[in-house]
Amino acid sequence: MPLNQQIFLDNRPSGEATASNFRLVRSETPALQDGQVLVRHHYLSLDPYMRGRMNDTKSYAASQPVGAVFQGGTVGEVVESRNDRYAAGDKVVGFGGWQEYSVVDASVLGALRKVDTTHVPLSYYLGAVGMPGVTAWYGLVKIIAPQQGETVVITAASGAVGSAFGALAKARGCRVVGIAGGPEKCRYAIEELGFDACIDYRANPDVKSMSAALKEACPNGIDGYFENVGGYIFDAVMLRLNAFARVALCGMIAGYDGAPLPLANPALFLINRVKLEGFIVSEHMEFWPQALEELGKLVATGKLKPRESIAQGIAAAPEAFLGLLKGRNFGKQLVKLI
Amino acid sequence: MPLNQQIFLDNRPSGEATASNFRLVRSETPALQDGQVLVRHHYLSLDPYMRGRMNDTKSYAASQPVGAVFQGGTVGEVVESRNDRYAAGDKVVGFGGWQEYSVVDASVLGALRKVDTTHVPLSYYLGAVGMPGVTAWYGLVKIIAPQQGETVVITAASGAVGSAFGALAKARGCRVVGIAGGPEKCRYAIEELGFDACIDYRANPDVKSMSAALKEACPNGIDGYFENVGGYIFDAVMLRLNAFARVALCGMIAGYDGAPLPLANPALFLINRVKLEGFIVSEHMEFWPQALEELGKLVATGKLKPRESIAQGIAAAPEAFLGLLKGRNFGKQLVKLI
Repeated sequence: MPLNQQIFLDNRPSGEATASNFRLVRSETPALQDGQVLVRHHYLSLDPYMRGRMNDTKSYAASQPVGAVFQGGTVGEVVESRNDRYAAGDKVVGFGGWQEYSVVDASVLGALRKVDTTHVPLSYYLGAVGMPGVTAWYGLVKIIAPQQGETVVITAASGAVGSAFGALAKARGCRVVGIAGGPEKCRYAIEELGFDACIDYRANPDVKSMSAALKEACPNGIDGYFENVGGYIFDAVMLRLNAFARVALCGMIAGYDGAPLPLANPALFLINRVKLEGFIVSEHMEFWPQALEELGKLVATGKLKPRESIAQGIAAAPEAFLGLLKGRNFGKQLVKLI
Repeated sequence: MPLNQQIFLDNRPSGEATASNFRLVRSETPALQDGQVLVRHHYLSLDPYMRGRMNDTKSYAASQPVGAVFQGGTVGEVVESRNDRYAAGDKVVGFGGWQEYSVVDASVLGALRKVDTTHVPLSYYLGAVGMPGVTAWYGLVKIIAPQQGETVVITAASGAVGSAFGALAKARGCRVVGIAGGPEKCRYAIEELGFDACIDYRANPDVKSMSAALKEACPNGIDGYFENVGGYIFDAVMLRLNAFARVALCGMIAGYDGAPLPLANPALFLINRVKLEGFIVSEHMEFWPQALEELGKLVATGKLKPRESIAQGIAAAPEAFLGLLKGRNFGKQLVKLI
């Protein structure tokens, strides 16, 4: 069996996560049992939600265990199979974690899914046509549920969720306004992703200036907001929400390190009769086929042009992940292993 | 025409509202035009939402104008009519404001509603079988939508909204936990209103002790929360919410005076996949008949025993209102005029 390189969570962060929380481990991949397949990973997915799982606090997902492979989504190729439904050469999406190979009991429902790479590159199944894409779809379609002509806003606009959100919202006739870090990401959101406007949060580092920028970019106010950062940006958006606005809440990166992250004026929820809903896309699997179909079509027709930040090699995963938490990625952050 | 005593908003508060914001005015009631009726008010309704309308800030309702009668709900009797659908002696609910008489164009839809006082005392149409009762109904039935056996929590438990909420939730098989100010109100909530438990917020004046008290009163966590106070109580409830909890947000008394009222940890909305909705009951008139019917039956069958705090005479309205904002009332706060 091949040698496997793995990244373990070595210890939990206190405050900010650092590279020393991780450890590189080498091991032999075990021999396959009946029903199992061996998958060679081509790409690892790095996602902001992983930071929350590093803490040992009550959250929606069980904590990532210490001294075990760091968990996460993967795409790859079956290299050996003792399962009738899979053969060597099959391209698959799974949850193999930060390692070069994984042994998967492919008879477990949802553990592995074959994908077609004729029109969609394999890596996109971790981004635009994967979990982040469906996350954007669910928040937009099921929570914000915009009418044509309404204004919707999303943070991390150039990222995996944001870029899918932009394409999905434009397809519904919305005015789509992004928020991103730096002029390059903002330019990309407008020119490549079709956003109507994009606000650079680095140039608007406080509630007052962000609120003014939002007023200019959203002359008719904000009807829907996809929240995945938190902090002062959320406060600024709150000041621009229209009556009966909807807020889909799916991440609060700014708070993962344990820094206090209060919301300045929750009374605005009442004043504007806002509907807010927190969600986790893995709890709504019934909508994935419908969402993935729409996302795949948007990619195939060139209406969704996702961008990827690719780190090379398993050892690069921790630093790439820490960079993602600081917004250093540009588009979907991946680790390429082959 | 009779002499009319009226309370005007004389000037807007800066910070806490005071009696000097109001002014007593005497005037003649004008002669009736065709379609109008003259109503003699028996009771004025005093409600927390009125504090918000004293400010000149953007809110869901237009501000209360300065130099005009203070607006609010009223019940009374038609004493003179130039409208075919009303006759002297009719008991009516309206929005006559803080004055002894009002001239109403009764042809305007919703301006006036005849009520039957055979089984429900007239004053109850301002409380349990009126706007506050329907507020409790909408928040419970349409937003919290509890399953039998779930735990629901409401602040101001002994007040007009809280008492109706308790009866409605018990009728749906919930565990109902109230929060109220002082042992007397808590005893009343349990013994007379049927709450399963009631927490005295005066004995639990910070997040930590309130959170501990909630843990004890809600051994299975909190599935639904009706929020009408805000501040540290909301923070404490947030710590006890179950996954998929619902929060109906209908008032934030603690913030009306302009004091900052942040929410400590909004990330809990995500962690627990909470659904929160702000609402104003007057925007959901289609549910009033259904809600009033259930509330009327609960009163008629003795399952809802609302309590009233009654101030006597128009001149007493401002002080009674300021007391309401500080929780000095016990049950629905009214002003009796005859």
